[in-house]
Amino acid sequence: DLDGCFDDWNDLEKEFVQLENDHKTYQKKLDEMVTYQKKCMASIAHHRYRIKQINETLKKINLANIAEEEKEKVTKLKNDMSERKSVFRDMEEILPHKNGLYLSIILGSVNISLLNKADKFQYKQNYEKFKLTVTYVVMFLSAFMHFITEYRWTDAVLNFLLVWYYCTLTIRESILVVNGSRIKGWWLTHHFISTVCAGITLIWPDSLTYQLFRKQYIFFTLYLSCVYVMQYYYQSGCLYRMRSLGEGHDMDITVEGFMSWMWKGLAFLLPFLFLGYVFQFYNAYTLYQLSRLPECKEWQVIVLAVIHFILFAGNLVTTLHVLRQKIQS
Amino acid sequence: DLDGCFDDWNDLEKEFVQLENDHKTYQKKLDEMVTYQKKCMASIAHHRYRIKQINETLKKINLANIAEEEKEKVTKLKNDMSERKSVFRDMEEILPHKNGLYLSIILGSVNISLLNKADKFQYKQNYEKFKLTVTYVVMFLSAFMHFITEYRWTDAVLNFLLVWYYCTLTIRESILVVNGSRIKGWWLTHHFISTVCAGITLIWPDSLTYQLFRKQYIFFTLYLSCVYVMQYYYQSGCLYRMRSLGEGHDMDITVEGFMSWMWKGLAFLLPFLFLGYVFQFYNAYTLYQLSRLPECKEWQVIVLAVIHFILFAGNLVTTLHVLRQKIQS
Ligand SMILES: CC(C)(COP(=O)(O)OP(=O)(O)OC[C@H]1O[C@@H](n2cnc3c(N)ncnc32)[C@H](O)[C@@H]1OP(=O)(O)O)[C@@H](O)C(=O)NCCC(=O)NCCS
Ligand SMILES: CC(C)(COP(=O)(O)OP(=O)(O)OC[C@H]1O[C@@H](n2cnc3c(N)ncnc32)[C@H](O)[C@@H]1OP(=O)(O)O)[C@@H](O)C(=O)NCCC(=O)NCCS
Repeated sequence: DLDGCFDDWNDLEKEFVQLENDHKTYQKKLDEMVTYQKKCMASIAHHRYRIKQINETLKKINLANIAEEEKEKVTKLKNDMSERKSVFRDMEEILPHKNGLYLSIILGSVNISLLNKADKFQYKQNYEKFKLTVTYVVMFLSAFMHFITEYRWTDAVLNFLLVWYYCTLTIRESILVVNGSRIKGWWLTHHFISTVCAGITLIWPDSLTYQLFRKQYIFFTLYLSCVYVMQYYYQSGCLYRMRSLGEGHDMDITVEGFMSWMWKGLAFLLPFLFLGYVFQFYNAYTLYQLSRLPECKEWQVIVLAVIHFILFAGNLVTTLHVLRQKIQS
Repeated sequence: DLDGCFDDWNDLEKEFVQLENDHKTYQKKLDEMVTYQKKCMASIAHHRYRIKQINETLKKINLANIAEEEKEKVTKLKNDMSERKSVFRDMEEILPHKNGLYLSIILGSVNISLLNKADKFQYKQNYEKFKLTVTYVVMFLSAFMHFITEYRWTDAVLNFLLVWYYCTLTIRESILVVNGSRIKGWWLTHHFISTVCAGITLIWPDSLTYQLFRKQYIFFTLYLSCVYVMQYYYQSGCLYRMRSLGEGHDMDITVEGFMSWMWKGLAFLLPFLFLGYVFQFYNAYTLYQLSRLPECKEWQVIVLAVIHFILFAGNLVTTLHVLRQKIQS
């Protein structure tokens, strides 16, 4: 038995030599990789700069004064340059990206780039799952609170959860954006504003106006979490199909199939979304009315009215804009 | 001028071929690096598993029954194994690390490893600077609030800032821990609890008890931010000297020099820290007295009393423990 141990250890010693070599090779490969990474990034920056300069020179030239033949060459040059730019964007898929201001403040100068498609997909999927899980918790909590009216601290728990949740969303979405997601700026802003909204609701003192708005607010939260669940099924469906399309390994899915699935999903989802926006507008309206009551002494009421209105307007405009884009393409 | 543009573009086209090749090489190096990375990680895990098994077998063997010579071999084996483990820790310095539960929830499955010493140092330094900046803001705000007693919303701003600040600290510190910082678990827990503490203070209704505690709380915040500034100079001083020691490029600094600097810094800092702990205890005591007033109807008061007491006790015990460790070594 003791001899067995010594034998095992001797075996391990031999394997360890291999590991040491692998580790040395790894260090070498890592250094080489970083060298080439820096080289590519510097080179792309240089090309971008030069292209910008060419563009500026072109702008200064009066095109009316030159021959037809030259004009064609200029058009071709411009096309080439914009094509080149999109090549750079493709190249940057596997290069690290700079954190924006928000991530630099929250996380500091750490590199959060995902350098391949599989990781990106997994990250996005994980993000959707996270949203779904927290949404179920919020749904459960707000349904539960419909029956509890006595305890202000359960309201505090819900609002704390919402502050934390929206805050975490903004972090994860910023990471997605750094890694090339085309998520519209408004949805990110939306989650920032929602954080503030939940925060202000949290510190709203337990007054008459609070009591008058509480039921509506809880019902709104409940409704919103139901919409988010539907949105999850739509968005994760899109994600899966996009991936199959992109990898091309699944011949069942064509671009047309994807489009028809997407429109079916949207047709189901949109009525609920628009009803949600109407609800948001109604919230703003109710809060505005409350703020005009003589009993209302809290600054939170009118501020929340404005915030709910901003959320309503931004959501409506952005969703309509997305729809127009989808119809056009 | 137009010809200049075409020439420039032709030059760029030639350079672009080089960039394309570099990019291809980069992709290759990246893939190779990832392959070796996985190999090393799997191999280390395998070694760890085998060593654990050997250790378990050794435990089962009755050492009283074996010859003296064998015993020596067993001792040597044990030494070898624990040495090997520390070799693994060194190897892991440049391998990616798994996120803990907290980071997985906040950031998701993104890799936040810093794979070289310079990045680690820079990250830590950035973290200390971040703390200093926010501390100055907190100091300014709480000094300002000493003169303003009318507006509850400035209190809300301060407490929101604190919630956000402590929350961000926990994220950054978790990243530090993943990258090998030896920061004690308590300081992380401390910032979690401080987040909760600021959150509960935030939702404390504007009652008699709140008014009675407000001045003391603001003064405490002010005092704490002064202590944090001192702590910053101590900790960033340690960091710089540690780095110079580690890199060995700066011959002015010896281990003895570092130790003497550290003790001088500590001797200056510790009285202020202990005064801070006494202050925390006093806060807990005051809150406990307030919670016994017949006018006190808020659950926040007694909960905050308990939290301040926990902070006091944890800080005191941990700092004493750190001191004992430092004296022993
Ligand atoms: C309108 C809507 C269904 C369109 O979704 P879509 O088809 O994915 O839209 P796009 O094609 O513009 O998506 C582009 C990217 O943004 C992401 N995205 C779109 N809307 C998002 C949202 N609300 N939150 C997070 N990400 C979103 C998509 O996942 C996609 O990411 P990718 O580039 O990584 O693949 C979607 O934007 C939506 O659900 N909006 C409503 C949100 C809302 O109003 N919430 C409040 C409810 S009252
Ligand atoms: C006692 C004290 C001065 C010792 O500092 P130190 O000499 O750096 O302590 P250690 O040697 O144990 O440090 C180990 C690591 O933990 C870090 N660390 C120690 N205390 C820390 C703290 N309070 N916050 C964040 N990081 C801390 C160090 O920077 C070091 O990091 P590294 O491994 O990346 O180099 C320090 O822990 C301290 O300031 N504690 C007081 C905090 C406090 O009580 N705050 C409330 C005020 S009332």
